[in-house]
Amino acid sequence: MLSDRVKQILSWYPSDNPGTLTNIARLLNTGALAGTGKLVSLPVDQGFEHGPIRSFGPNAASNDPEYHINLAIDSACSAYAAPLGQLEAVAGKYAGQMPLILKLNNSDTLAKVDQPCSALTGTVEDALRLGCVAIGYTIYPGSGQRNQMYQDLRDLTIEAKRKGLAVVVWSYPRGAGLSKAGETGIDICCYASHIAAQLGAHLVKVKPPTAHVEQEESKKIFEKYPVKLDTLADRTKYVIENTFAGKRVVIFSGGEAKGTDAVIEEVRQMAKGGSFGSIMGRNAFQRPRQEALKLLSDVMAAFRSGA
Amino acid sequence: MLSDRVKQILSWYPSDNPGTLTNIARLLNTGALAGTGKLVSLPVDQGFEHGPIRSFGPNAASNDPEYHINLAIDSACSAYAAPLGQLEAVAGKYAGQMPLILKLNNSDTLAKVDQPCSALTGTVEDALRLGCVAIGYTIYPGSGQRNQMYQDLRDLTIEAKRKGLAVVVWSYPRGAGLSKAGETGIDICCYASHIAAQLGAHLVKVKPPTAHVEQEESKKIFEKYPVKLDTLADRTKYVIENTFAGKRVVIFSGGEAKGTDAVIEEVRQMAKGGSFGSIMGRNAFQRPRQEALKLLSDVMAAFRSGA
Amino acid sequence: MLSDRVKQILSWYPSDNPGTLTNIARLLNTGALAGTGKLVSLPVDQGFEHGPIRSFGPNAASNDPEYHINLAIDSACSAYAAPLGQLEAVAGKYAGQMPLILKLNNSDTLAKVDQPCSALTGTVEDALRLGCVAIGYTIYPGSGQRNQMYQDLRDLTIEAKRKGLAVVVWSYPRGAGLSKAGETGIDICCYASHIAAQLGAHLVKVKPPTAHVEQEESKKIFEKYPVKLDTLADRTKYVIENTFAGKRVVIFSGGEAKGTDAVIEEVRQMAKGGSFGSIMGRNAFQRPRQEALKLLSDVMAAFRSGA
Amino acid sequence: MLSDRVKQILSWYPSDNPGTLTNIARLLNTGALAGTGKLVSLPVDQGFEHGPIRSFGPNAASNDPEYHINLAIDSACSAYAAPLGQLEAVAGKYAGQMPLILKLNNSDTLAKVDQPCSALTGTVEDALRLGCVAIGYTIYPGSGQRNQMYQDLRDLTIEAKRKGLAVVVWSYPRGAGLSKAGETGIDICCYASHIAAQLGAHLVKVKPPTAHVEQEESKKIFEKYPVKLDTLADRTKYVIENTFAGKRVVIFSGGEAKGTDAVIEEVRQMAKGGSFGSIMGRNAFQRPRQEALKLLSDVMAAFRSGA
Amino acid sequence: MLSDRVKQILSWYPSDNPGTLTNIARLLNTGALAGTGKLVSLPVDQGFEHGPIRSFGPNAASNDPEYHINLAIDSACSAYAAPLGQLEAVAGKYAGQMPLILKLNNSDTLAKVDQPCSALTGTVEDALRLGCVAIGYTIYPGSGQRNQMYQDLRDLTIEAKRKGLAVVVWSYPRGAGLSKAGETGIDICCYASHIAAQLGAHLVKVKPPTAHVEQEESKKIFEKYPVKLDTLADRTKYVIENTFAGKRVVIFSGGEAKGTDAVIEEVRQMAKGGSFGSIMGRNAFQRPRQEALKLLSDVMAAFRSGA
Repeated sequence: MLSDRVKQILSWYPSDNPGTLTNIARLLNTGALAGTGKLVSLPVDQGFEHGPIRSFGPNAASNDPEYHINLAIDSACSAYAAPLGQLEAVAGKYAGQMPLILKLNNSDTLAKVDQPCSALTGTVEDALRLGCVAIGYTIYPGSGQRNQMYQDLRDLTIEAKRKGLAVVVWSYPRGAGLSKAGETGIDICCYASHIAAQLGAHLVKVKPPTAHVEQEESKKIFEKYPVKLDTLADRTKYVIENTFAGKRVVIFSGGEAKGTDAVIEEVRQMAKGGSFGSIMGRNAFQRPRQEALKLLSDVMAAFRSGA
Repeated sequence: MLSDRVKQILSWYPSDNPGTLTNIARLLNTGALAGTGKLVSLPVDQGFEHGPIRSFGPNAASNDPEYHINLAIDSACSAYAAPLGQLEAVAGKYAGQMPLILKLNNSDTLAKVDQPCSALTGTVEDALRLGCVAIGYTIYPGSGQRNQMYQDLRDLTIEAKRKGLAVVVWSYPRGAGLSKAGETGIDICCYASHIAAQLGAHLVKVKPPTAHVEQEESKKIFEKYPVKLDTLADRTKYVIENTFAGKRVVIFSGGEAKGTDAVIEEVRQMAKGGSFGSIMGRNAFQRPRQEALKLLSDVMAAFRSGA
Repeated sequence: MLSDRVKQILSWYPSDNPGTLTNIARLLNTGALAGTGKLVSLPVDQGFEHGPIRSFGPNAASNDPEYHINLAIDSACSAYAAPLGQLEAVAGKYAGQMPLILKLNNSDTLAKVDQPCSALTGTVEDALRLGCVAIGYTIYPGSGQRNQMYQDLRDLTIEAKRKGLAVVVWSYPRGAGLSKAGETGIDICCYASHIAAQLGAHLVKVKPPTAHVEQEESKKIFEKYPVKLDTLADRTKYVIENTFAGKRVVIFSGGEAKGTDAVIEEVRQMAKGGSFGSIMGRNAFQRPRQEALKLLSDVMAAFRSGA
Repeated sequence: MLSDRVKQILSWYPSDNPGTLTNIARLLNTGALAGTGKLVSLPVDQGFEHGPIRSFGPNAASNDPEYHINLAIDSACSAYAAPLGQLEAVAGKYAGQMPLILKLNNSDTLAKVDQPCSALTGTVEDALRLGCVAIGYTIYPGSGQRNQMYQDLRDLTIEAKRKGLAVVVWSYPRGAGLSKAGETGIDICCYASHIAAQLGAHLVKVKPPTAHVEQEESKKIFEKYPVKLDTLADRTKYVIENTFAGKRVVIFSGGEAKGTDAVIEEVRQMAKGGSFGSIMGRNAFQRPRQEALKLLSDVMAAFRSGA
Repeated sequence: MLSDRVKQILSWYPSDNPGTLTNIARLLNTGALAGTGKLVSLPVDQGFEHGPIRSFGPNAASNDPEYHINLAIDSACSAYAAPLGQLEAVAGKYAGQMPLILKLNNSDTLAKVDQPCSALTGTVEDALRLGCVAIGYTIYPGSGQRNQMYQDLRDLTIEAKRKGLAVVVWSYPRGAGLSKAGETGIDICCYASHIAAQLGAHLVKVKPPTAHVEQEESKKIFEKYPVKLDTLADRTKYVIENTFAGKRVVIFSGGEAKGTDAVIEEVRQMAKGGSFGSIMGRNAFQRPRQEALKLLSDVMAAFRSGA
């Protein structure tokens, strides 16, 4: 049975086939937040993106791909997302126990490139054979290589939607077009989230926005049409509003590892702002397992209560 | 979370990819029987197979495809199976609410043919776009057209398995090779169930076997190696044993519409014999809705208790 | 390392690619007969071909697909051959433990047809994904449907050979063109074995030939050019001679279940006649396991000693 | 028969089909180290990569492709890996005598390019027709061309896995993103090995890591979470831990030709650190044949004894 | 009938199908050198590569494509190689009179590019419909575009070999990675010839090597392992040795037009060094026809006598 809220969310995707809607429903109907319209997922691609030492060094047990799927299951997450090899290492053994999202592109930090662009590392066929509910894909708005990324996503998206999968897009502004502060500035975050929605994403993941405003055009608008952007809750609300008036599932990432109180406070702000949930990677698996389970439980409670 | 029983059942399919295992797990983890390793599914292809008047005349409300999906949802069935049009009529609106099985071949009773053979009426791509967990397919062992049916199933099966779907085969002996009594004879039922498993079915649906023995060779074996086949429970057990020693999910259909007591008694026998469940079509939808819900509830209770 | 005899056998296939040669070598380099140029394989398609009751009734443990692969492994057979479902039930769990042959067509005894023809029940892609060394295929020379079977084999063979698999053909004369005695008559057996070789088989399986001569033309030849055909050894030798002068691997099936002494005597005759080995199905799995292991060991010893 | 250790290793690949598992088993069940879970393979792509003079000049007999396959066979290696032409020169004649790995990309040292990238020089179809157990592929993490390499590997990998082959990835950090010392630094080696696993490799080959630490982020982790990295054994252990907690087969290359004592000492350290084995190219074929056989024998003994 | 020498050469290609072997045999069994294991072929792609004026201006009759095929036939050459249009102009009329090689890529001198790369100008299907025995392809090791050329060749090669054609690779080092002298330096010539063999070429065509040594690594090897490279005969021998120890057919081109004595002297040196023959283009067709016939006759005589 689906809750009214989940049915409402599904109604925002009237052009998708029943297969894709079914998989969105599975994401929204799993774990501790099932039926609430909120979701907390565990994404573990940091081994690829930042290297295993930096990612798993703080908690050596987390080198094992089984560690993460077990953490996702035991904490009653909504989904587990990872690159090809990491999913293959567990998908057969844990089949049917957790909605899986296959990250189809990834980037490492070894090469020096001016305009960042992730490599394609998996296929829609992989997502089907591994039993995934969705494909995941990262775009870097701001990069000179963004067209390549958008176009590859276009090809993956049409195939995924034809075959009944959902599409989750990580939208992380980056590249020569942006200042460092701009990468998480509120106007850029809104823009990045909106682009992901425009590219056909069913779920969008962005970073928590700061009060920084990057573009002159944005500042002019804010002067003329003032918006309350003081708190993270305000800004969360504003990002969601800028993403099809809240009719796309927008989730916020936790970002770099930080203290428990800081994580919970951030999550409360996002929940208050109406976030559909968050992804919790390093803040989960870099803690000892018991602490991580407690934290994830608290995070889910915050989203459930809406603050 | 999956129960130990469901994990055990998944272990019987060591050559399937995680996608297919995931979908088998979804079938076994839905509804009132979730986690028990038993399943009761609602199949409604009788409109095609026997005509709408004969099928839905007794309960005019059942002409509406929504009637059936609602019945499946409200009775907490494990799955709902139907032909293409009937699934298309509901899959989008009810996405995520019930595991669906797309019947990929169907036969009507309008043409007169000596050797029955169902027509291909759907594709694996349809199953994916409608969000199905499995494809369904009917074979008629005993028909002179069986080779055509087996070969079409072969092509559908390799594609379905590559794309992470499960395969459900209805094996209904029929045709010039068999007497009428033979169609449900215990030896023929065992043979039919075994053939479905050999063709690569993950789930097999057969009719409840009678004590009739059709083939001379079977009689000789029974004389030399006596088997207890007195009750339906005995015969159910024997069919399952003949289908990879119980390592395939074998479900029994309820067959023609009959009185409630008769249905329940039949189900109890099948449950006692270790059946993995049953499909309940006409006996469900040809009854008034409340009666049908009560009956399905009783049927599930019988399978849960094992008798 | 390959023995000189195995290298000699490989030299008979100068037009095959290294992949196919490698898989023929694997068949000849496994188990108790490794390196001898002889092979004993366990084929278990009787559940499909004759029905599970008649096949597995005498030894109920043999209903379990794992029973057979374990029997093949524990008896140090050269290979295990079975239809799709039966191989899928074990291939993942027993990967790498026994060369597998996927039977790509099968026939049941339920339908009544004048001109027998097996149904296609598996694909070359299945053989690759299950890790098989060869595809297996049955032809019925003598059937009015033989052209269909030969043509389907043609398509499977070109694909299998391109992808580096070996081709094993069961050649069992049958159909309106032959008397019952003719099905195993010496001239027909020679003809059937030759046809399989002509169709591109690397390994040929035929039934032990009797002294019966079916065709008038054959009788005339035997009158003009007398051949010694008194013993099974003589006839075995003659069949092999008629199959590319011994330059194809011809194996003889054990046929119906019979007493141990009869099996061993038959095998000794075949070994004396230069048979490349035998397939041992019902005579193996219809016995209690310990007896079967002993029998298979004795059979292999006979082939090793050449009598 | 497979040893318990080999079965354990196969259990780390729960999402692969039986065909791929069978080929991994073949790699682990061949030669002097069969069944130990260790492997020593002979890779000879240096003629392409460094040129024939530099590679084979020290031992002119090694110009002959047959020299290498014979060396692999006579030393009881686990596998022989080479580019297309070099495998074609021997695969037909030596079919079935040694597991083969077809290197599907190669680079020469004639062109001057800033961002290294190997050319695709073979196909999965070639690997099948030559009877290979695996495809081999080299990536250069650190190169600005890495995305092209990762994406080409993605396409080859999905095809190879569908057709039952194993995937071996050589991961050699190189390019503008790294210092010369960094190419073999411990943190980069861990990262490179991890990326190969994430890209879906079943077996990973890396260079022996030095104590050099390249990335600032790695240094911070080591300060906060000290790791013993003094000896090559320590570092070997650490690389393996960083590659799915030891649940991927990681092999170390011998690198440049050096004295026998130095080779053996290096191997002992790697064995002590838990390496799954090594590849031994120039250190083998640039020595006189008898010395090479002795060296390979000693190397295998070291891996067998674990030190 | 094939001579023992031709049979020996065919034995170097144990992984090729009989179709490809047949076409290699046709090349080696045509014209004045039939059966000797040597071949002289007439390649005329200079119109495309250098322009018609520069190529055919010295002998206007040679503008006619029929001129060349007639020259090849009348001089009893082993084969005639040309681009698509030039072969189409004669293949139908002269069908069966001369083994043809279709050059599948070509480059003109009109564009200015830093990193040379030939264009694909024909297909394997063209080669089949024109009755060719082989495809021809040029690579430029040393060019930054070499990966593109190697990869295109990979695709053509797998198709050509599947369809029974032979593969002839012209390997002409060129590009930013090499000095002008280096293009024909002995070490580079060895490397280029070796790469062509590694890419799967059956026949390799290179330029006559000079005594220049381009790479530092080569110099070191020559210091440590001295090689006699004084004469063209020495160097020819060395190139052949570096190309699979003489187990690939390596042919040397005549290069730029020069005096008759110079041509003959060069050919004698190459013959003495064990060259498998040469290609003779401009030195043939830029001479008056009678002179060309005489020259070709003398060249073939030199190869036949081995000096």
